[in-house]
Amino acid sequence: MQNQEETLSLTFAALTSPTRRAILARLAQGEATVNQLAEPFNMSLPAISKHIKVLENAGLIKQGQKAQYRPCTIDVKPLKEISNWTEQYRHIWESSFDRIDEYINQLNNKENNNE
Amino acid sequence: MQNQEETLSLTFAALTSPTRRAILARLAQGEATVNQLAEPFNMSLPAISKHIKVLENAGLIKQGQKAQYRPCTIDVKPLKEISNWTEQYRHIWESSFDRIDEYINQLNNKENNNE
Repeated sequence: MQNQEETLSLTFAALTSPTRRAILARLAQGEATVNQLAEPFNMSLPAISKHIKVLENAGLIKQGQKAQYRPCTIDVKPLKEISNWTEQYRHIWESSFDRIDEYINQLNNKENNNE
Repeated sequence: MQNQEETLSLTFAALTSPTRRAILARLAQGEATVNQLAEPFNMSLPAISKHIKVLENAGLIKQGQKAQYRPCTIDVKPLKEISNWTEQYRHIWESSFDRIDEYINQLNNKENNNE
């Protein structure tokens, strides 16, 4: 059983590749076979299979067991974990946007006073 | 200027290390010097400096320019980008929780009917 830190590291590592992120975006629309995934990316089957293996190891996709036809499906649980992890920083970016809003309001007020 | 995909890749890569995530968590509480960061992690200054460099390259921290005392501060903009990126998958995990809720309700109903 992985601990939460290891799971996060594995998920972040899987998401460092734009191709793997694009595969996830495709699978969010529905399951697809390796062939179907390889096509739009103009990649060889071995290349796309490597990416799929990384995503599978990170728990981000599951591959069916039907012979010949092994569709990949997305598993969003690790993405939810990442979303939860970023939440601890939300108060910081929200407060900095508040400060920008405040600054813009001050500028607008000055402008109105000068009119 | 990096494009959005490159920025995401760089941010995810910086976040693959539990130590770098812990540094960010520390900096979320306020600025700290490299020495102050090195202490709780029981790491050498060169080792912690390497991590800081990776975080800085990913735009996740900024280092002050005052000689002797160069405090690091967190910059959460890339974390906000990640949070936004995960949002495209929220409907999937929310609908799977809905299905689990529905299943639990059905079980409870059955139980009530059997009483």
